Amino acid sequence: MTELKNDRFLRALLRQPVDVTPVWMMRQAGRYLPEYRETRKKAGSFMDLCTNPDLACEVTLQPLERFPLDAAILFSDILTIPDAMGLGLYFEEGEGPRFKTPLRDEKQIMALGVPDPEQELRYVMDAVRTIRRELHARVPLIGFSGSPWTLATYMVEGGSSKGFHTIKAMMYERPELLDRLLETVDAAVTLYLNAQIAAGAQAVMIFDTWGGALTPRDYCHFSLKPMERIIKSLKRENEGRKVPVILFTKNGGQWLEAMTDTGADALGLDWTTDLGDARRRVGGQVALQGNLDPSVLYASPPHIREQVARVLASFGQGNGHVFNLGHGIHPDVNPEHAGAMVEAVHELSKPYHE
Amino acid sequence: MTELKNDRFLRALLRQPVDVTPVWMMRQAGRYLPEYRETRKKAGSFMDLCTNPDLACEVTLQPLERFPLDAAILFSDILTIPDAMGLGLYFEEGEGPRFKTPLRDEKQIMALGVPDPEQELRYVMDAVRTIRRELHARVPLIGFSGSPWTLATYMVEGGSSKGFHTIKAMMYERPELLDRLLETVDAAVTLYLNAQIAAGAQAVMIFDTWGGALTPRDYCHFSLKPMERIIKSLKRENEGRKVPVILFTKNGGQWLEAMTDTGADALGLDWTTDLGDARRRVGGQVALQGNLDPSVLYASPPHIREQVARVLASFGQGNGHVFNLGHGIHPDVNPEHAGAMVEAVHELSKPYHE
Repeated sequence: MTELKNDRFLRALLRQPVDVTPVWMMRQAGRYLPEYRETRKKAGSFMDLCTNPDLACEVTLQPLERFPLDAAILFSDILTIPDAMGLGLYFEEGEGPRFKTPLRDEKQIMALGVPDPEQELRYVMDAVRTIRRELHARVPLIGFSGSPWTLATYMVEGGSSKGFHTIKAMMYERPELLDRLLETVDAAVTLYLNAQIAAGAQAVMIFDTWGGALTPRDYCHFSLKPMERIIKSLKRENEGRKVPVILFTKNGGQWLEAMTDTGADALGLDWTTDLGDARRRVGGQVALQGNLDPSVLYASPPHIREQVARVLASFGQGNGHVFNLGHGIHPDVNPEHAGAMVEAVHELSKPYHE
Repeated sequence: MTELKNDRFLRALLRQPVDVTPVWMMRQAGRYLPEYRETRKKAGSFMDLCTNPDLACEVTLQPLERFPLDAAILFSDILTIPDAMGLGLYFEEGEGPRFKTPLRDEKQIMALGVPDPEQELRYVMDAVRTIRRELHARVPLIGFSGSPWTLATYMVEGGSSKGFHTIKAMMYERPELLDRLLETVDAAVTLYLNAQIAAGAQAVMIFDTWGGALTPRDYCHFSLKPMERIIKSLKRENEGRKVPVILFTKNGGQWLEAMTDTGADALGLDWTTDLGDARRRVGGQVALQGNLDPSVLYASPPHIREQVARVLASFGQGNGHVFNLGHGIHPDVNPEHAGAMVEAVHELSKPYHE
């Protein structure tokens, strides 16, 4: 095992002391970067880019060349698992992801198999191994998966959804069938994340993009419980080091206490929750990651700096904060503005760690 | 003043005793009803329907013919005010509302006038008067407006928005300019709601559809403060009766305490907050309105009944609850399912009022 040159991110997730607050950005490898758009053109389709480990590695490293980020995140899509289950993922320009054969009846759900990550999802594991090698221990690599509930919404709706009509009809009408689907997805996510850890991911994050569309009761049952089962089954140590788990439910600010009880090391927060309030509520049991409104990056650097200062001040003195946006960086953001944010975080956070 | 035949709704908003929990549905006059679709066809465009007081009255009363609802709500659009300000509202099929001349520079914002409700918005006041007459005091009539922040998002973005890029850039870059815009809209909403009250609205509701897209700090400043100014300037008594004010911020479950301090009589809740928790948090200072997930209506009547029972149980014994969906009824819901919900509320809520 090579010693990490910069382990701030991992230390902060475990609430250990750091010199400055570590920072990365959700979707930091993405369309706002001209070099990403170049590689994407070279690759062909979006899935061609995801399934090519060398190109996936290339785009993963691009933001690190530009900005002194404290973590890299695997470039991939959250829908690789349902694709490997045979649902036929494809992308329509400007339409978002779609599945050729969404799950519409009981028979399909009962027949669903759990993919072997080193077979059907080998391209993801190869990307993890390639990125780890090419990172040369500069910063840690984050692996990730969508949450079972989030994956299930796409699998049942057949793509992005505004109202989640089909899956919610199933939830209220046939809850046991949805439970069955979630158990299968849950098993698949567990294998997938453990394989990413074995392949070299040094932290993992579960993206629960759509848990916030549920009632508190349904969130606990259909989104949080499956995530908790996954967290309890993860390999939490590798290469002699702890592998922290980050749980992020978009619009989940009302449920932080319940999320804390899952055993996650850190919770991701969007910008609708005050970081200081969240810190008091989780009572030092978990680290917090977030939570600048991504739209702040439309403002000019001095205003970005001002808003970064606010987020840092709201967390306050001490350990356990990873700075991030509250959601993925917008594709039409000026990359220099992202740079201004990263710089401001490192510079302005020093006093909070003295 | 004619005595109301059914005043449960007004009594519940003021936390007075009722025999059963009153119920109405956001967008109860709407596309899920075949008779609405008929009138809409007859009217021509959506705005033709809104601006015709007789037809607006007709669709307002349609759901009351079908279901024993405890309130009627004025049929109108939330964007009538910006339209009257000269922004040129129009609707593109499947695209939602658009403005011909969105606000893009300081000059436009400084030049914005406040419409006289009995002039430029006379068609709305005429609709209120017509509906009041045709209701024959069966149930109270609710007037409404969009919140200043919500109206401003459409005015600046030029229509519906996913990320609110333009207005958020203004918010972070030129907060004083946004303040100025909100003050103008705020004055317009105050006049508009007071005119609706004078014309016969017996309760008013402020729809803050997009306040939940803000940070807690920005929500307080740019959305809640303008709403509080409005509430403090409303005529709260008319025809010898109190005119209750309902405040609804979608995705505002984290800010109920602050919302309570505005002086509103009741808060609307979407389904992401537990009604019982909300009740404890607001400590009997306001009534609560909500909060069934509108997608429950995709399930069959026995399952609808089950979920209605859950919402009633979560509020529990006593006064101060108006049953509603947590958001507008979906256009593809079977009207019989809406009926099953209304029936279940009246039937199952009796024990909570004994």
